[in-house]
Amino acid sequence: MPLRKVAIIGLGLLGGSIGLAVREHLPDVATTGYDADPDVRSKARALGLAHTIADDPAEAVRGADLVVLCVPVGAMRAAAQAIAPGLSDSVIISDVGSSKQRVGKALAEELPGRHVIPAHPVAGTEQSGPDAGFASLFHQRWCIVTPPEGADAHKVAALVDFWKSLGSTVEVMDAAHHDMVLAVTSHIPHLIAYTIVGTASDLEDVTRSEVIKYSAGGFRDFTRIAASDPTMWRDVFLHNKDAVLEMMDRFQADLGAMRNAIEADDGDAMFDLFTRTRAIRRSILEQGQDDARPDFGRGQE
Amino acid sequence: MPLRKVAIIGLGLLGGSIGLAVREHLPDVATTGYDADPDVRSKARALGLAHTIADDPAEAVRGADLVVLCVPVGAMRAAAQAIAPGLSDSVIISDVGSSKQRVGKALAEELPGRHVIPAHPVAGTEQSGPDAGFASLFHQRWCIVTPPEGADAHKVAALVDFWKSLGSTVEVMDAAHHDMVLAVTSHIPHLIAYTIVGTASDLEDVTRSEVIKYSAGGFRDFTRIAASDPTMWRDVFLHNKDAVLEMMDRFQADLGAMRNAIEADDGDAMFDLFTRTRAIRRSILEQGQDDARPDFGRGQE
Repeated sequence: MPLRKVAIIGLGLLGGSIGLAVREHLPDVATTGYDADPDVRSKARALGLAHTIADDPAEAVRGADLVVLCVPVGAMRAAAQAIAPGLSDSVIISDVGSSKQRVGKALAEELPGRHVIPAHPVAGTEQSGPDAGFASLFHQRWCIVTPPEGADAHKVAALVDFWKSLGSTVEVMDAAHHDMVLAVTSHIPHLIAYTIVGTASDLEDVTRSEVIKYSAGGFRDFTRIAASDPTMWRDVFLHNKDAVLEMMDRFQADLGAMRNAIEADDGDAMFDLFTRTRAIRRSILEQGQDDARPDFGRGQE
Repeated sequence: MPLRKVAIIGLGLLGGSIGLAVREHLPDVATTGYDADPDVRSKARALGLAHTIADDPAEAVRGADLVVLCVPVGAMRAAAQAIAPGLSDSVIISDVGSSKQRVGKALAEELPGRHVIPAHPVAGTEQSGPDAGFASLFHQRWCIVTPPEGADAHKVAALVDFWKSLGSTVEVMDAAHHDMVLAVTSHIPHLIAYTIVGTASDLEDVTRSEVIKYSAGGFRDFTRIAASDPTMWRDVFLHNKDAVLEMMDRFQADLGAMRNAIEADDGDAMFDLFTRTRAIRRSILEQGQDDARPDFGRGQE
């Protein structure tokens, strides 16, 4: 059951990259794209993010074997309503959202009887918008597919093959477990980064220009993450609330313990933690999930 | 008053990089090096980190115009005691430590009557040890010099010129203010990164292999920082305790406010913060303190 036509709804970093990646890796597959913002549609046309850019969402999905919703998770329900009139019977409905339980539920409610198979490519950059996409975004990145109970195995296989074609390694997982894993590996790191950058910009005794000047000491890595798309991330926290709050409570408890160690001059507790954390970094490099150049080569000329 | 001989005590990432940078930028200046670890001294000889590697600290500083202590801040006092017998009368004693008030106090106590002028090059990578150094580490990086009251203006100028020669931009600042600025821009980011990496590795419902696999979602940037040298960082937190605790309390209060916003489904509070933080990122890029390639080009092939 090969895919012949893929519709992409939402043409930002993710949607645009999917369009470019299909062009490169699946040259026989036709793509149509739609974005609610007319300016984004114009840019998408100019950039060739899909073969056809439609001005109407139902029109964009007509005849598609696969629809990929690439909108913020808070906009999934409205996007599903907008495409419903154009869907063919056998179409696979998927998405790229960072939270999966609530998105799966919203899509199933809006599109009863349809083949809804949520997915999440764990890939992205701090950039956003139609200009930010590139065809290799998914190369050597994980894509997590979270089929609901009773999902059609052939449809799941077709979606898995689609993501493999774009260069991803695919993992199939329960949506609830996905939401817990991503809360730790992605959502809490983003929340922390946004918060500390906010804390630093609100100080009275240290000026903002000093914060910027001396950011090479560690802070700048947080600012990169804290430059991520505000709408997307607001929606992620609202839609993966339970897992995020649970992980946050654990982090805050651990941070409190480090505070106590500093206050009590307990160097051993710090040394133990700081030694343990190095091993995790090593594994990430061994598994090819990051670049081993010191400082990503930023300090080297 | 040009420098003719520089002694480097401690030959890890910073000390080694100073040695290599002097070779490249100040070819007429002689360097001697010393490290308490005989293995590091052997490696330093093989790598040519200094013209001469001495086996005795007092011997290493004999005849030097400038001594730069490149040891963890908790080892500064012992290093000062060890070099004291070899120091010439007019020598400048400086260091590269990340906290300045306590280091300045320790050096002044151990070396009464000497020209102690603490400094802090805001440069480094997550690597450590004598193999990690490179000559361009200080290029386009800030170096903060914190002369005590009554410091000899000519000696301060000589130290400032030294760092400028290695490629740094120098700022002169009060030690207490330095400690506050660095608590925000460097120490708290490191403490947060170490803590969240520890939190993630202690989870029961998410395996460590899952944390590693899906780290590209944001977590991996924290692991890079949390791979920094444990001894160095333990000492930084112990020696800049007051400023670190003050900044940590502010961060924890802000994090609590974000927790409340998530719990109350207050999307506007999140959106406001997430929008504000983008501006800081933009300024850091404009001032050349980071690399603008999306994801540092990690996602691009």
